[in-house]
Amino acid sequence: MLGTMLHGPGDVRCEEVAEPTILRPTDAIVRLSATCICGSDLWPYRGVSEVTSPMAMGHEYCGIIEEVGSAVTTVRPGQFVVGSFCISDNTCPHCRFGFQSSCQQREFMTGAQAPLVRVPLADGTLVATAELPADDLIPSLLAASDVLGTGWYAADAARVRPGSTVAVVGDGAVGLMGVLAARQMGAARIIAMSRHKARQDLALEFGATDIVSERGDAGVTRIKELTDGVGADSVLECVGTKESMAQAIHCARPGAMIGYVGVPHGVELDGQALFFSQTGMLGGPAPVRRFLPHLMDMVLERKINPGKVFDMELPLADVAEGYRAMDERRAIKTLLRV
Amino acid sequence: MLGTMLHGPGDVRCEEVAEPTILRPTDAIVRLSATCICGSDLWPYRGVSEVTSPMAMGHEYCGIIEEVGSAVTTVRPGQFVVGSFCISDNTCPHCRFGFQSSCQQREFMTGAQAPLVRVPLADGTLVATAELPADDLIPSLLAASDVLGTGWYAADAARVRPGSTVAVVGDGAVGLMGVLAARQMGAARIIAMSRHKARQDLALEFGATDIVSERGDAGVTRIKELTDGVGADSVLECVGTKESMAQAIHCARPGAMIGYVGVPHGVELDGQALFFSQTGMLGGPAPVRRFLPHLMDMVLERKINPGKVFDMELPLADVAEGYRAMDERRAIKTLLRV
Repeated sequence: MLGTMLHGPGDVRCEEVAEPTILRPTDAIVRLSATCICGSDLWPYRGVSEVTSPMAMGHEYCGIIEEVGSAVTTVRPGQFVVGSFCISDNTCPHCRFGFQSSCQQREFMTGAQAPLVRVPLADGTLVATAELPADDLIPSLLAASDVLGTGWYAADAARVRPGSTVAVVGDGAVGLMGVLAARQMGAARIIAMSRHKARQDLALEFGATDIVSERGDAGVTRIKELTDGVGADSVLECVGTKESMAQAIHCARPGAMIGYVGVPHGVELDGQALFFSQTGMLGGPAPVRRFLPHLMDMVLERKINPGKVFDMELPLADVAEGYRAMDERRAIKTLLRV
Repeated sequence: MLGTMLHGPGDVRCEEVAEPTILRPTDAIVRLSATCICGSDLWPYRGVSEVTSPMAMGHEYCGIIEEVGSAVTTVRPGQFVVGSFCISDNTCPHCRFGFQSSCQQREFMTGAQAPLVRVPLADGTLVATAELPADDLIPSLLAASDVLGTGWYAADAARVRPGSTVAVVGDGAVGLMGVLAARQMGAARIIAMSRHKARQDLALEFGATDIVSERGDAGVTRIKELTDGVGADSVLECVGTKESMAQAIHCARPGAMIGYVGVPHGVELDGQALFFSQTGMLGGPAPVRRFLPHLMDMVLERKINPGKVFDMELPLADVAEGYRAMDERRAIKTLLRV
């Protein structure tokens, strides 16, 4: 079959790869309905994370089960499923605490930019729908696999509450999903920081009440102006750079939580400064599995439409163009038809 | 009157100082029933924080109001009051959010190691009792002013819940109060890290269920053993050094919160490490005022006895010996009779 391999910085190829097979009795093989490219795929693509040998790319997925291993009991061939980018058993102490992304058996999904994928720990990882979903819901169900779940976790970790004032740093797909999540959680005011017209528009559509196009100190000043000098109750940090984290910290009111979901690159935090600013922080790879049933229900009931975050759609064969478009910020997020 | 002045590292003196007077209409003058020495007083005493000019020491206090300014409306002369070490108006947005220690009018109390003290923003800062408390409750009410409120905040920030497993790093007075707070909040298991017999005994009396005498990596290993390899649900960091913070982080399970109340000195946090360990953090100067009415009620109802944390009592004239005893860890916390 065709699959997506990253051979080195900037060198992503759709090429012939082996079809996945059941390796362990807890595995499932899923035929994907669609897949996509994640902002985090750009770290190795850009050479920020090292690529020492060819990597099978893709960790977001939904589709129909083809086959399950002998130990799988909760899902069966023919069912439509969504799974998290983090493989988890959903029974260990970390999973039961709601942090499935730190599961004692955690693996990170790979190889999902392809027509078929092997999902380990299928019982713990996959959530099935009662019936096959309508085709037009596929993008939104795919989004639940990572980008929506990650934005949701950012809002959850930042403790967004009904009536909250929320600032969202980062107008990538995750930041936009953070806006959607904050809206669903009842935030009264959602300030999206974005300089790009198309992303601003999507943020407004997802529920942002204010757009701040300034960055850095000017952006912080603007947030303070919009909040009577107080700062935001909750801040979603959806980038992961030193600059974006500093911006998030300075937008936060004392006692606010920052939910940070952009993998931090070169971020050092000064303990004493955080102490005196009373900035709370919780981040990490999102425990999407915790939220997945609820997110899928909202999609199936057509309460939310996170699939709108895909503003480019390509056949898998053109995956390289999808990476280029996202790298050059011509696309927010690229859906791949398999 | 006599008051306590720090002239330089190790040089603390009880000497003649001017009696405080009402400077602003929102002030109150309080005749202290007792006062005490705080672990944080040792930072300048040890020369870790710079002392550029003589400092009036003391920020923990309770006593009877002598006089109030013309704008004070909620407390009156003759009432017994306790106040936080942080002066706050209790009406600004930060106060209403429960972070009175970041009040827009915040001042830090000084000069309370003396018989009389001026309390700014008396209406916002002071909490009066319905009647004069029994003498034997004075140490516990004094504790509510800072050390108990700070330990309570550590447990609150660390989100201790009924049934939680809690690790407390630091066996100073604040750590011991953290143990007491965790117990009151319903923690099922409270692991106090302490190498000192007297402090271990007090921790057990305040509600600790386990004592870990190892430190550093060995301490972390022991906590992991005690929690089936999982780590603690909540960690109270009550020291503020690089070593104690590292210990706290490594004792925390993924998704745990660390409530840190020791002023961090030389603590740098690596964003990516915190991200992948999914360690949540919230710290800062404790918003004692938020908890004060509840803490005072529990003391007055004799549900808690935090005053036991004072294991040395001296007349104010001997304040220098009180500092020496705490510096040399001969005393956990020294109460001063004024």
